[in-house]
Amino acid sequence: MQRLALSQEDKQVRDWFIETTKALKCEVTVDEMGNIFAVRPGRRTDVPPTFIGSHLDTQPTGGRYDGILGVLSGIETLKVIDEMGLETEGGIGVVNWTNEEGARFPISMVSSGVWAECIPLERAHGLKEVPTVASLPTASSAPESMKSALEKINYLGSVPCSYKQTPMAAHFELHIEQGPHLISAGQHVGVVTAVQAYRWFHLTIFGRDTHTGTTAFEHRADALYAFARMMVRAREVASSHGCLASVGIVEAKPGSVNTVPGTVSFTLDIRGPESELVQVVEDQLRKEFDSIAAEEGKGIGKPCRVEWTLDFDSPAVKFHPDCIECVQQSAEAVVSDVNAAEPKSLMRTIMSGAGHDSVFTSKRVPTSMIFVPCKDGLSHHPEEFCSADDCATGASVILQAVIRYDRKRFSK
Amino acid sequence: MQRLALSQEDKQVRDWFIETTKALKCEVTVDEMGNIFAVRPGRRTDVPPTFIGSHLDTQPTGGRYDGILGVLSGIETLKVIDEMGLETEGGIGVVNWTNEEGARFPISMVSSGVWAECIPLERAHGLKEVPTVASLPTASSAPESMKSALEKINYLGSVPCSYKQTPMAAHFELHIEQGPHLISAGQHVGVVTAVQAYRWFHLTIFGRDTHTGTTAFEHRADALYAFARMMVRAREVASSHGCLASVGIVEAKPGSVNTVPGTVSFTLDIRGPESELVQVVEDQLRKEFDSIAAEEGKGIGKPCRVEWTLDFDSPAVKFHPDCIECVQQSAEAVVSDVNAAEPKSLMRTIMSGAGHDSVFTSKRVPTSMIFVPCKDGLSHHPEEFCSADDCATGASVILQAVIRYDRKRFSK
Repeated sequence: MQRLALSQEDKQVRDWFIETTKALKCEVTVDEMGNIFAVRPGRRTDVPPTFIGSHLDTQPTGGRYDGILGVLSGIETLKVIDEMGLETEGGIGVVNWTNEEGARFPISMVSSGVWAECIPLERAHGLKEVPTVASLPTASSAPESMKSALEKINYLGSVPCSYKQTPMAAHFELHIEQGPHLISAGQHVGVVTAVQAYRWFHLTIFGRDTHTGTTAFEHRADALYAFARMMVRAREVASSHGCLASVGIVEAKPGSVNTVPGTVSFTLDIRGPESELVQVVEDQLRKEFDSIAAEEGKGIGKPCRVEWTLDFDSPAVKFHPDCIECVQQSAEAVVSDVNAAEPKSLMRTIMSGAGHDSVFTSKRVPTSMIFVPCKDGLSHHPEEFCSADDCATGASVILQAVIRYDRKRFSK
Repeated sequence: MQRLALSQEDKQVRDWFIETTKALKCEVTVDEMGNIFAVRPGRRTDVPPTFIGSHLDTQPTGGRYDGILGVLSGIETLKVIDEMGLETEGGIGVVNWTNEEGARFPISMVSSGVWAECIPLERAHGLKEVPTVASLPTASSAPESMKSALEKINYLGSVPCSYKQTPMAAHFELHIEQGPHLISAGQHVGVVTAVQAYRWFHLTIFGRDTHTGTTAFEHRADALYAFARMMVRAREVASSHGCLASVGIVEAKPGSVNTVPGTVSFTLDIRGPESELVQVVEDQLRKEFDSIAAEEGKGIGKPCRVEWTLDFDSPAVKFHPDCIECVQQSAEAVVSDVNAAEPKSLMRTIMSGAGHDSVFTSKRVPTSMIFVPCKDGLSHHPEEFCSADDCATGASVILQAVIRYDRKRFSK
C-alpha cells in the first residue's frame, strides 16, 4: 500500500470515508489540517463525543493495516451501533488524522499535534514534502507545502484545528502492534498503557571531498566512513540502555563513485521506555560522534565535524486509567468468548514502541489504545498482515470500550 | 568548478578550445564520442602526430586543475612552438577526451576507452546520466543518455571513435598528483611510470523495511546497518593489503525517518598497486560482506543478503619506457634550471593512484604522464590548487617531452 498523505489516493479514501460515515447518520466536519471528524449524535448534544481515531495515510512502502485498521474499526463500530439500534448518551465519533506517518510531510502525527495545540498551525502548514519520496512527481522539482497540498485535493477545511473547537470526551485507538510480542506469545489483545519516549534528529557530518584513488586513508576526512562508524556505535550504545537507535534516511554528497563524500546528512531516531533513558543515549552519542568525527581526517587538512538538529521530541506517555480500564474490561469480555483454557492468557498489558495520534490526544483528553498481533511483528512493509479474526477481536474490543466509556462517564 | 560532461558549460569550453587551437594553425576533428583532436601539422604528413591529452570536464564539486591543466598545457605547448617557429617532423596534437570523470555518465575515461576499442560505442552512447547529480535539471525526471547529450550540444562528431581512425604516435599527459607525496616531500615533478589497478562495483543489500519504534534490533534486517558494518570492514581489509576501498554513492530505501531501510545500494571502489592485490581484497570482502549480511536479521523473517555487480575493471598499467625516458630527461633539464643544491631531489618516479585517459591510450600507443604537486594532496574539491610555478614547470616538461619524442622516433 502506498497512500502518501494528501496524494490523489488519499483524496479518494477521504471522499469514501465521508460518504460512508454520512450514510451512517454522521455529521462530518473537516478542519484546517484536513482532519475529518464524523460524529453519530447521542441523546445529549451538550457533551463532547467519544472518539475512535487513527489515520488512512501510509508509508511509501506501507502495509494495509497500520492506521487503516483503526479508522475502519471506527466505521465498523458505527455500523454495529446502527444495526443494533444502540443509543448512547454522548455522541460516538470517528476521526481520520492527516499525515500521521510523517512520511510525506516530515513531522509524524502532525495534525493531532496541531489539534492538541502542541504544534503551531503555521509550522504544520509550511512543512515541505520530503524530496526522497520519489513517487511524488512534484517532490524533486519544487517540494509542495502541506497547505498547498491540502488545497490541491480540496481538504483545507474552515474549522480551526484545535481541541477547543472540536472537543472530545475521550480518544480510543485500535492498532496493529507493529512488534513481535503478541504474535510470538500467541496472544490476541494488548491493552496499551503507555508509549515509549522518542526523539528525532537530523545530523550532518562535514568532511572533505577528495579523490578515492589518490587519498590515503590517513589523509581522508571521509564523512560517509564517519557515518558508518557512528551508525554501528549507535546500536551498541542504545542496546546497552535497553533503547533503540535507527537511521532511516541518509544522503552522501557529492555522490560520485570516485570521490570521497565530504558531506553526509542522516536522520537518527532514538527511543526508550523512559524519556530519561533517551536523554542518556543522546548524551552518550553526542560525545562519541564527536570523537569519531575528530578521528576521521587527522592527517592533512581539517578533521570531520558533526552537527545535530532536534526535529521532534515525544516524551514517554502514560495513558488514562479510565480508558485503560474500559479497554481492559472489554478485552476480558471478548477473549472469554474465545474457546481457550485460560482466556486471560490471551491478553496482556503492553507499551507502544511507536508514536500514534493517541500520544497527542492524551495531552488533552483521556486516551488509550488497543493492540492486535501482526505477522512476524512486521510493519511499514507491504507484507504487513493481521488475520481477519484478530481484526474482528480488536474491533469488538473497541466497540465495547467506547460503549463502556459512554456509560462510565454518565454514571458518575 | 562544476563543469559536468556535455553540459552547457562544457559546450562553452569546447567551443573555446576549437577556436583557440584553430587560431594556432591546428586542424580540428570531432569523433562520435565528442573527443576533440586539434593537430598542428609537422613536416611529414604520412605519420601520426604526437599527442598531449587530458579532459575539460569536472566532478560535481571539482577543482580548476584536474584534467584542465593537462589540456591547457597542450595549448600552451602549441603556442610556444608557434612563437618559437619550431618545426617538428610529425604533427603535434592536443586532445580533449569526453567525460573522463565518469561523474555525469558513470564510466570514467569512457571516451578514451571507446577510442582504444576497449569499450563498445553502443555501451558508451547508451550510458544514462547519474540521477544523484542534482544540479542537472534533467537528472531526476528523465535521465539523459550520453548520445542525446552529445547531440544536444552539437558535439556528436561524424569521425568513428577509434585509434585506427585517429592514430597517435604517442600520448603524454600532465596532471596534478591528486595525492600528498610530491607536496609533502617538497618535490616539483613526478615521472609517472605506472597506474594502480582498480575495480568499481555497485552492491545492493536486500533486508526488510520495518518500523523503527517497534522492531527490536534482533528482529531487524536493517540493510543500512549492514552497509555501515561493511564500510567499516572494507577499510580495515583494504588497509591490511596496502590497498584502498571507498564508497562514493549510497542510497537507502524507502527513505523515511521511522522506517528501517530494507534496501541499500552503494558503489565500491577498490584500488591497489597490483591487479592481484585488488583481487585479494575483493575476494575477502565478498566473504565478509556475506557474513555481515547473514548476521543481520537472524530473528523473525529472512536475514539480509548482498549482491555485487562489477561496473569497471582497470588492471594495473605500466607506461612505455620510451615515453618515460622522454619525460625523465625533460624533467631533469627543467629542474636543473631551478636554483637548488640538488636539482634531482626535486623530482621522483611515482605511481598514479587515479585512472586517467592515459590508461586507455597506453593500450594502443606509447604513453606516459607527468605529475605536479597540489595543495594538501586535495582533488575533486573546490579547494584543489597547484601553484603557477608548478603549472609552468609541468608545462615546460611536457613541451620538452613531446619535442624529444618527435626527435627520438625519427632519429631511429
